[in-house]
Amino acid sequence: MASLEFWFDYASTYSHLAAMRIRGAAEARGVAVRWRAFLLGPIFGAQGWRDSPFNIYPAKGRNMWRDMDRQAAKHGLPPVTRPEPFPQHSLLAARATLALPEDLRGAFAETLFRAEFVEGWDISDPGTISAAVRAAGGDPAAVLEATQDQAVKDALKAQGAEAARLGIYGAPSFVTGDGELFWGHDRMEDALDWAAWRGVRPAG
Amino acid sequence: MASLEFWFDYASTYSHLAAMRIRGAAEARGVAVRWRAFLLGPIFGAQGWRDSPFNIYPAKGRNMWRDMDRQAAKHGLPPVTRPEPFPQHSLLAARATLALPEDLRGAFAETLFRAEFVEGWDISDPGTISAAVRAAGGDPAAVLEATQDQAVKDALKAQGAEAARLGIYGAPSFVTGDGELFWGHDRMEDALDWAAWRGVRPAG
Repeated sequence: MASLEFWFDYASTYSHLAAMRIRGAAEARGVAVRWRAFLLGPIFGAQGWRDSPFNIYPAKGRNMWRDMDRQAAKHGLPPVTRPEPFPQHSLLAARATLALPEDLRGAFAETLFRAEFVEGWDISDPGTISAAVRAAGGDPAAVLEATQDQAVKDALKAQGAEAARLGIYGAPSFVTGDGELFWGHDRMEDALDWAAWRGVRPAG
Repeated sequence: MASLEFWFDYASTYSHLAAMRIRGAAEARGVAVRWRAFLLGPIFGAQGWRDSPFNIYPAKGRNMWRDMDRQAAKHGLPPVTRPEPFPQHSLLAARATLALPEDLRGAFAETLFRAEFVEGWDISDPGTISAAVRAAGGDPAAVLEATQDQAVKDALKAQGAEAARLGIYGAPSFVTGDGELFWGHDRMEDALDWAAWRGVRPAG
């Protein structure tokens, strides 16, 4: 089965749009999605940014929020709420994702993005994480405890190093089995098409 | 007739894609396009950038060129050539646009973008500008002379001030008659749809 890696940061607005839409778009093409949470912070930090570019550059930020409203309407998604603070602290959420079995990560991420960008919940709050773990069919207490394990902390750091190695510089990003990198919610369909077509192209 | 303002900088790669495609996409919707050349330099400068972000952030730049190859193929456009140097100096080209009658600006811009990003010509070379003016049906000598007129220099400055006032922070950008701002080649169809629908929506 064709597959696609979906790299996202829970604090990222366009990752939210992709998270709300990727399951249906992938199923329609028979593509399996690997949900890969990572932290943009270290990657932005290496570029000299200490905050979201949407906060650093106000005109860009204003239009991004307007664009979120338009894109949500265009794709039939619930209206977008601006989380406070923005960006949210996504460390606990990213660790919780890695503490979950891989087959629950997509459902957890969908629930958490909706809680953050539709309901306006604080995703750094352990109560929010617990509710999303429960909704995804996981064990909230075990996951919250595991977020403090060195193994989970290391796994998230390794995930970040892999993102940098793959050339990822923003979120969402999509990486195909043959190493093609697509950046942005606007490239989600292209990335899924690329992944799907690979299965019907002759090898080499 | 519905209309849309197309704001572009000749040095901008995604402005090239939009310039190659907007005529057909606008005609299909019955939307008139106003071609508005401006300089991103002062706007980027106000954000602290002294170079293209695609040069400042190498991972972003690498993926942009790869994306240009993919997008050109996807939309049936000629393969993209990387101009040397990148970004090109677009001051002379922008002034020449404003020195032309408005009805020739689109043809001039299409020719010049193709010369730059397909043929690899230097758009700061008066010979390149002359050839594009001639192809658009203008008078090359008169236009080149007019690029040194204070009125044309002032018109370009006013165009830049208007871009900033409209909230433009990148190129290409699209602005509808009711003031809706769309950023990026990826929003070109949305902007054209918005402009076209306005004519069939009830007022107010």
